Amino acid sequence: MITVIAKTNVNDMNYDKYISLTGQLVVASQAEENNVSYEHYENTSIPNAFVFVEQWKDRAALNAHVEADHFKVYWKEITQLCINEPTIQMFEDSDEISYE
Amino acid sequence: MITVIAKTNVNDMNYDKYISLTGQLVVASQAEENNVSYEHYENTSIPNAFVFVEQWKDRAALNAHVEADHFKVYWKEITQLCINEPTIQMFEDSDEISYE
Repeated sequence: MITVIAKTNVNDMNYDKYISLTGQLVVASQAEENNVSYEHYENTSIPNAFVFVEQWKDRAALNAHVEADHFKVYWKEITQLCINEPTIQMFEDSDEISYE
Repeated sequence: MITVIAKTNVNDMNYDKYISLTGQLVVASQAEENNVSYEHYENTSIPNAFVFVEQWKDRAALNAHVEADHFKVYWKEITQLCINEPTIQMFEDSDEISYE
């Protein structure tokens, strides 16, 4: 499984448009055949800071996502609302852990 | 570097207390010597769903965090406000990627 953490920082004046576009991207991406989960979150301390937390079946599924028309259109529009380049990290494996 | 993704789902009636406690946990955890980043986010589509996105210098740093008094106290209180067990994933390495 592939996990992606993509962080964005949005221009305050673009907030409403950004929320609308990311909402549409979440729905379209969750509908992709090999998507495991696709979530978008807002920082609870830092204004206008967000993160996508995504999981895909494999690297081919992530590649297909990045090539999908809906991704290309939404991502281009979304990044134009940001104040800097998004940071994107990819992880190939994970361990489930417990804090108990 | 170690990355942790910890997802929580909070009882609606506990929302304000949860936000207060997680805010304090973020500040205390960011102050730890070997913390790289420690962020807390709220899902923009799903009510009362949250994620911690954390990065630590190494596994020893994460172990020290889990053993810290502030973590033990806040985490116990925080999980008591949740409607189910948090899911926690740990990643040992990452690749920086670009969607351009």
